[in-house]
Amino acid sequence: MDQAVRFLDLLFDAGLLIQTGVDGLYGRSGAFEDVLNRVDALATRYGADDGAETLRFPPAMSRRAFETSGYLKSFPQLAGTVHSFCGNERDHARLLECLGAGDDWTSGQQATDVVLTPAACYPLYPTLAKRGPLPDDGKLFDLQSYCFRHEPSLDPARMQLFRMREYVRAGTPEQVLAFRETWLKRGEAMIRSLGLPLTIDIANDPFFGRAGKIMASGQRDQGLKFELLVPINSAAEPTACLSFNYHQDHFGKTWGIAMADGATAHTACVGFGLERITLALFKHHGLDVEAWPTPARDVLWG
Amino acid sequence: MDQAVRFLDLLFDAGLLIQTGVDGLYGRSGAFEDVLNRVDALATRYGADDGAETLRFPPAMSRRAFETSGYLKSFPQLAGTVHSFCGNERDHARLLECLGAGDDWTSGQQATDVVLTPAACYPLYPTLAKRGPLPDDGKLFDLQSYCFRHEPSLDPARMQLFRMREYVRAGTPEQVLAFRETWLKRGEAMIRSLGLPLTIDIANDPFFGRAGKIMASGQRDQGLKFELLVPINSAAEPTACLSFNYHQDHFGKTWGIAMADGATAHTACVGFGLERITLALFKHHGLDVEAWPTPARDVLWG
Repeated sequence: MDQAVRFLDLLFDAGLLIQTGVDGLYGRSGAFEDVLNRVDALATRYGADDGAETLRFPPAMSRRAFETSGYLKSFPQLAGTVHSFCGNERDHARLLECLGAGDDWTSGQQATDVVLTPAACYPLYPTLAKRGPLPDDGKLFDLQSYCFRHEPSLDPARMQLFRMREYVRAGTPEQVLAFRETWLKRGEAMIRSLGLPLTIDIANDPFFGRAGKIMASGQRDQGLKFELLVPINSAAEPTACLSFNYHQDHFGKTWGIAMADGATAHTACVGFGLERITLALFKHHGLDVEAWPTPARDVLWG
Repeated sequence: MDQAVRFLDLLFDAGLLIQTGVDGLYGRSGAFEDVLNRVDALATRYGADDGAETLRFPPAMSRRAFETSGYLKSFPQLAGTVHSFCGNERDHARLLECLGAGDDWTSGQQATDVVLTPAACYPLYPTLAKRGPLPDDGKLFDLQSYCFRHEPSLDPARMQLFRMREYVRAGTPEQVLAFRETWLKRGEAMIRSLGLPLTIDIANDPFFGRAGKIMASGQRDQGLKFELLVPINSAAEPTACLSFNYHQDHFGKTWGIAMADGATAHTACVGFGLERITLALFKHHGLDVEAWPTPARDVLWG
């Protein structure tokens, strides 16, 4: 963790990230955003010929859809529900009194109908289900959004709010596995073109509790999740910058997404951690983008 | 409101906005996002020669900074606090039981250190204060972020999550008033170049409660807030697409932002409601961007 904290301090000192007083919640400089947007555009170029439908959701989703998604079963500790003040003037006076006295004023806040988006693809599935059966060749979507995970950390690569770019494929098992194979190759080519060292490994999600441990090992045993890892804080514990996930029929079943023949649709996604790839670039090529190696500059600015 | 609901339905039918089951929370199509990004880029072009420092904050800010900002005094009803599950496995089992029974599972959620950003400039002020006194010619910032306001509505121009682009000027009263004058002219030129009808009017913020009514009329009497309005739902009640706000020394005092000579800094901002300008374009020029009038197309795509 020392390495991570040192890198975070370097980023603050260079003004690339801006402290807010909350671990994992940072402002970004124009230079940081410029690199991040160029990484995002690079992911667009790699997927340009696939005919994906572009959708963009805000950084929050319907609470009802969130409840249906099953996220609370697997990752309750990471979710962020949005709450509001719904009282009258007397309640307001009490709230301000609490605030003024340094007491907790948040217990009167009531849950709204929205929850922060945990992964860019979560708002997609109910949308897709509402459209009815998929065509025979399935569907492909292009998504990006800020995502929230409640895991305050001093590791700059573990932010509470970060952007995830995703391509999501829905279709038959063959179609979605072929998609994942393609992106495993493309992702590797993309990150190598930026001059970053990488490994690809089987992985699992951070499922909650003891039952979660069993789910995690099932996920590994079945080879459902792969990650493309780049050393950011240490070579021993490299950071997942891309992930390649085969959901089988999990979302298809959850949402009732069907193929034309009535079979439950399978889904898979490739997710790009845009802040993580950006941080990997600053880590390996230095804090001054003008001094980055020519090949990486050509890929991003060319 | 009928007009607003009809326009919202048209946008859903055309696939430009996507329903999520929550009023004011919508997905956006690729075409919608393309127009919005071009409007954003147009605001960049109008401000390009001013030497603004670009900063981008995530759609949430530190709760402590939010508390200090005074927002809860003026607009408690609009704020969105982020809450998380902080329990153990037994608590988790109870949560899932509530969820399964259709009971309220949210009362156990605890407030985190983050609050959704109510306006793009809110995370800026504490950042600015930490940097110490402003140079003699003050400072200029370029901001953009998703903002949250808890006001569910069927008016497509009143979303709960929307993007606000802002330029914020900090300096002497003369400097910040000159900035506001410049942007009143630029904003008018920008919106006219898009072929949209507009009016500019004195305005006030939606302060909470009876005391809020007095604050609102004080704001109007002093001419602190102007809005550039474009009819979206009706000519009688046009929608604020840009706003021009002179905060006097409100944020300077709140955060201790000082000039080099020790005087409290004044601030002003121009805010662009990116979804609103985009919606105004679709309303006035039609839902098919290919069929928009040539002058507007030249400005955005030229």
